[in-house]
Amino acid sequence: MRVRVLDRAGRVRDGIAEDGVVDVGDSTLSTDSVTWLPPCEPSKIVCLARNVAAHAAEHDAVVPDRPEYFLKPPTALAAHEGVVTIPEPIDSVEFEAELAAVIGAPTRDIPEDRVLDHVAGLTCMNDLSNRTDQRQEINWIRGKAFDGAAPLGPGIVDPASVPADATIELSVDGERQQVGNRDEYEFDLSTTIADLSQYMTLQPGDVIALGTTAGVGPIPDGATVEIDIEGIPTLRHQVEYAQ
Amino acid sequence: MRVRVLDRAGRVRDGIAEDGVVDVGDSTLSTDSVTWLPPCEPSKIVCLARNVAAHAAEHDAVVPDRPEYFLKPPTALAAHEGVVTIPEPIDSVEFEAELAAVIGAPTRDIPEDRVLDHVAGLTCMNDLSNRTDQRQEINWIRGKAFDGAAPLGPGIVDPASVPADATIELSVDGERQQVGNRDEYEFDLSTTIADLSQYMTLQPGDVIALGTTAGVGPIPDGATVEIDIEGIPTLRHQVEYAQ
Repeated sequence: MRVRVLDRAGRVRDGIAEDGVVDVGDSTLSTDSVTWLPPCEPSKIVCLARNVAAHAAEHDAVVPDRPEYFLKPPTALAAHEGVVTIPEPIDSVEFEAELAAVIGAPTRDIPEDRVLDHVAGLTCMNDLSNRTDQRQEINWIRGKAFDGAAPLGPGIVDPASVPADATIELSVDGERQQVGNRDEYEFDLSTTIADLSQYMTLQPGDVIALGTTAGVGPIPDGATVEIDIEGIPTLRHQVEYAQ
Repeated sequence: MRVRVLDRAGRVRDGIAEDGVVDVGDSTLSTDSVTWLPPCEPSKIVCLARNVAAHAAEHDAVVPDRPEYFLKPPTALAAHEGVVTIPEPIDSVEFEAELAAVIGAPTRDIPEDRVLDHVAGLTCMNDLSNRTDQRQEINWIRGKAFDGAAPLGPGIVDPASVPADATIELSVDGERQQVGNRDEYEFDLSTTIADLSQYMTLQPGDVIALGTTAGVGPIPDGATVEIDIEGIPTLRHQVEYAQ
């Protein structure tokens, strides 16, 4: 998988991670020696809401008749093996395991059958959600756009590595909390990106997160969250509360 | 005012515009010879909704008890003297004249009395809004985050140049449509940025738009929109529909 890491000198390196090492072109770094970075540098993160019937039902909602979007800003990113410190006004966040696509080429007004030509690859995202504020807001800014609200990674894999019926699982401190499947997504990658590209230009590095399956729940202070999507190495991060 | 322009060679230049010329340090360019660019390069544009009672009433709403935010991505930017082509699925957009602040230094968790130390200056924004989609969406993405939905400029002025009771006016093809006043904002710059900075880091270049006053309305195909805020030179742009 393609990754971005900080080497021991503090230099940002693009590389290919495999079997515990990162090939950065001029040398090979042990994954133990690097600091993981988010695998891309998006100008925006576009997320789907209510894209799985079983999750929509958890919030007494249904899947809409076309993709329903919201935005997270680049400052929401967090990396694999990172510690997300939840901003002080927020007393609890919930996990949402999601499959995400990273854009590889400028994308505007493209048909569904050309979407994959514009996708660099797939990765895992945790759509961290602060329900207290989310329920009170029109747009989900305090709810889902706070610093650290988008742990992403660990790296970008070829779209062909992730089956159409890939399992999407999430655990908190080793206990499995979510077990879903990619085929539960009402709107798939191609439908979504073709639709979205009618309204806005997607730029290389931009992230499109397809939504969570059922089973969302709170993350305790200090807990470690792991997201396992079939075909993508595990995304792991910790959560701490500032308050 | 501080501006970003493209010179005749196609090079991006930062400069100071005054009396029809742009001082770019090594030379002086006539404003007639340059192409205007948005005056900053935001990682995000955070906007206030329903921040003026008279405008909230136009949509049968009231001003909330704390700032209500939404996001536009950087791809929504358009420049002074630019032509915004409204994406094909959208059949009509409305104008919303707004005072906007540009962040000058990394901003997180700051008190109200330090906000101005973090603000590079003020500018004009047109919060272009596609009501048909906005009314059907949970978060306003098709409604307010499409390409070109944030004409911004013409440049950045010192905050001291814009009075607390500055007039905010907008005209379409020379006919005045909106006449508002900065003192109608329920949440001012300091309250807003201090609040927002509790949740997310604002980065240099990020834009905070304070919301529109009353009198919003549709923009016809081919029309020219002008926003005049006391203390800031006029922002002018054109609107065309792709459909």
